[in-house]
Amino acid sequence: MNYEKFFGDALDRLHDERRYRVFADLERVAGRFPHAVWHSPAGPRDVVIWCSNDYLGMGQHPKVVGAMVETATRLGTGAGGTRNIAGTHHPLVQLEAELADLHGKEAALLFTSGYVSNQTGISTLTKLIPNCLILSDALNHNSMIEGIRQSGCERVVWRHNDVAHLEELLKTAGPDRPKLIAFESLYSMDGDVAPMAKICDLAEKYGAMTYCDEVHAVGMYGPRGAGIAERDGVMHRIDILEGTLAKAYGCLGGYIAGKSKVVDAVRSYAPGFIFTTALPPAICAAATAAIKHLKTSSWERERHQDRAARVKAILSAAGLPVMPTDTHIVPVFVGDAERCKKACDILIEEHGIYLQPINYPTVAKGKERLRITPSPYHDDGLIDRLAEALVMVWEQLDLPLGAKSMAAE
Amino acid sequence: MNYEKFFGDALDRLHDERRYRVFADLERVAGRFPHAVWHSPAGPRDVVIWCSNDYLGMGQHPKVVGAMVETATRLGTGAGGTRNIAGTHHPLVQLEAELADLHGKEAALLFTSGYVSNQTGISTLTKLIPNCLILSDALNHNSMIEGIRQSGCERVVWRHNDVAHLEELLKTAGPDRPKLIAFESLYSMDGDVAPMAKICDLAEKYGAMTYCDEVHAVGMYGPRGAGIAERDGVMHRIDILEGTLAKAYGCLGGYIAGKSKVVDAVRSYAPGFIFTTALPPAICAAATAAIKHLKTSSWERERHQDRAARVKAILSAAGLPVMPTDTHIVPVFVGDAERCKKACDILIEEHGIYLQPINYPTVAKGKERLRITPSPYHDDGLIDRLAEALVMVWEQLDLPLGAKSMAAE
Repeated sequence: MNYEKFFGDALDRLHDERRYRVFADLERVAGRFPHAVWHSPAGPRDVVIWCSNDYLGMGQHPKVVGAMVETATRLGTGAGGTRNIAGTHHPLVQLEAELADLHGKEAALLFTSGYVSNQTGISTLTKLIPNCLILSDALNHNSMIEGIRQSGCERVVWRHNDVAHLEELLKTAGPDRPKLIAFESLYSMDGDVAPMAKICDLAEKYGAMTYCDEVHAVGMYGPRGAGIAERDGVMHRIDILEGTLAKAYGCLGGYIAGKSKVVDAVRSYAPGFIFTTALPPAICAAATAAIKHLKTSSWERERHQDRAARVKAILSAAGLPVMPTDTHIVPVFVGDAERCKKACDILIEEHGIYLQPINYPTVAKGKERLRITPSPYHDDGLIDRLAEALVMVWEQLDLPLGAKSMAAE
Repeated sequence: MNYEKFFGDALDRLHDERRYRVFADLERVAGRFPHAVWHSPAGPRDVVIWCSNDYLGMGQHPKVVGAMVETATRLGTGAGGTRNIAGTHHPLVQLEAELADLHGKEAALLFTSGYVSNQTGISTLTKLIPNCLILSDALNHNSMIEGIRQSGCERVVWRHNDVAHLEELLKTAGPDRPKLIAFESLYSMDGDVAPMAKICDLAEKYGAMTYCDEVHAVGMYGPRGAGIAERDGVMHRIDILEGTLAKAYGCLGGYIAGKSKVVDAVRSYAPGFIFTTALPPAICAAATAAIKHLKTSSWERERHQDRAARVKAILSAAGLPVMPTDTHIVPVFVGDAERCKKACDILIEEHGIYLQPINYPTVAKGKERLRITPSPYHDDGLIDRLAEALVMVWEQLDLPLGAKSMAAE
């Protein structure tokens, strides 16, 4: 049997649909972010990264790097086992305490990634609730969808951020049925924010639990960086908060936080937690250092918002079709997979600007875009050069600029 | 609705079945492994770890720690994005090349953990093969079972390591049906090894693909540490090899290696790979250092086997029911969940020896055991003290010793 053909065919389908992805081989240099070295096919070249999810540049912060280096030197590189079998180390225990404190919850539980925390967290939680109905926002991340699918529970999808639709579905389910409302606080591709307080109102009115993914908000919103729920004063009303250490905190790993019994039940039943090696001590110590720093320092958050506002203003003034958002995400509309890919190729090759095309399946067909994530370290000069480069690319690819560009949206 | 009660009930069930787990909070000290500090409820205490999966102590090797420290200092702590969006960094690209070379395959693909590599790797692979039948060894790890379940493919289970049964099932499936044989090379709870060559013979005879999990063998077997397949001379006959960087290599992460098209298809289609942040540069560099070292140094492998043989000999001579294995895993039979747990409590509290009870669901009920994993750094004195402590515990708990102990098995 020719098995290779199956895989070759699968790859051909991606090429045909212009969805085949080539990863850029990068080397970010600590202390020089957003500058990086791109190991291009023609050799190493300097580039500026405009699409990192290390939103605040904490991955190069001396306190964070220092904690990683000090802990690796003292405790070694790996955890050496699952949490139950020799893998629970002191920096991990300290990190979980730090996370519980951050979110004002009784307990927190660390996973190897945010993806795994949603996948095994949601499926485990809801399996423990008899006849649970999951109400899922239409734009929830793949990791939540996988968690919901694996739970085997009945699921209904509410229109994105549409609380009237959510209420309808809650009403239909009835007061006696256990229900979980699953949503994100900040949707990373559109940069829009959930109506948190209204969702909490509905959850309380109809007796539902709430599960909120804050991965694109922790570190960046709220007075201590606990996220949109903290900023909006509803953190205590969300049953389970899920977050990541791999974006604004600059490290690796995901977590949930909530009441002790809920967290303990996931700890005790989740296969994707039980049967996997714990995160290394040095990673945990680095994440703790980042969280502690961002609990008190608001410079990064303020500068981050300032930079995002400036990028939006400069790009809009240049006539580029910036999609409106209330957050640090700056999507620029393209609406065509091929030109979206081509724009990024030209940007890195001719302008040393690294951006990735956001095409299907990450966004719907026809909604292709560039997704720009400014950091506190993108200065005015870099923003000006980004705008100039984008305008040139827009002209080269015959994409609409100025008044026309808005119509395109 | 009282949601907390659902979770409380779930926890009560574990307590009732004596399956509730308490994690020991440990601090391994680089350079002093297997010695560690146990943060016990009564304060910090020195203990010796006898159940780590950092089998060769590479997590404290100066080359490995050095690579982590140097890379974190130079490139920062996190990858900053998914592989596609700013997360593919140079140390990761180098690690994948190193892994492909290790296994003599065209390509390798890194995942955030071995668990994820099996879960999303197997499910993605088999979804791309129309009407694929998966033939799964009865003792496959939870991560493989989850991957198989999520594939949605038909699955048949062959009796553990029973090639006659496997052949029966292959024959029944017929030559025209695509088939994947999924198995482990070394089963970590019993320490037994798959009949690799015979499985390859059958795969070739009946036209099946082979997927082999080598997580408990990579680094430790074969002249360059590529695992049991390398040792047995069949590495080129296995289609997909899966391994980990979190055990013998002392770091974090999992991977698959195989033909370029197969690996590229998984890279392009696997949700658990696409939508998750890449592993940090410092982790990848540390893993590469460990692999490179163990490709040429056989001291660790030889000393490891020598220590395992000595533990088996000394414990058997003391009359303890050592379950026979051909590998570095030393299971000691208990056969009772409560006394298995109790034995471990006494060992850590009274003897400063850290072992974990291996109870259901990790092994079947009635098969409870201690699982001892000697490392190159467990010297004769530590082995003698382990034997003495175990004998005392066996007497305390009225477990059978000597000739009687064998009958118990």
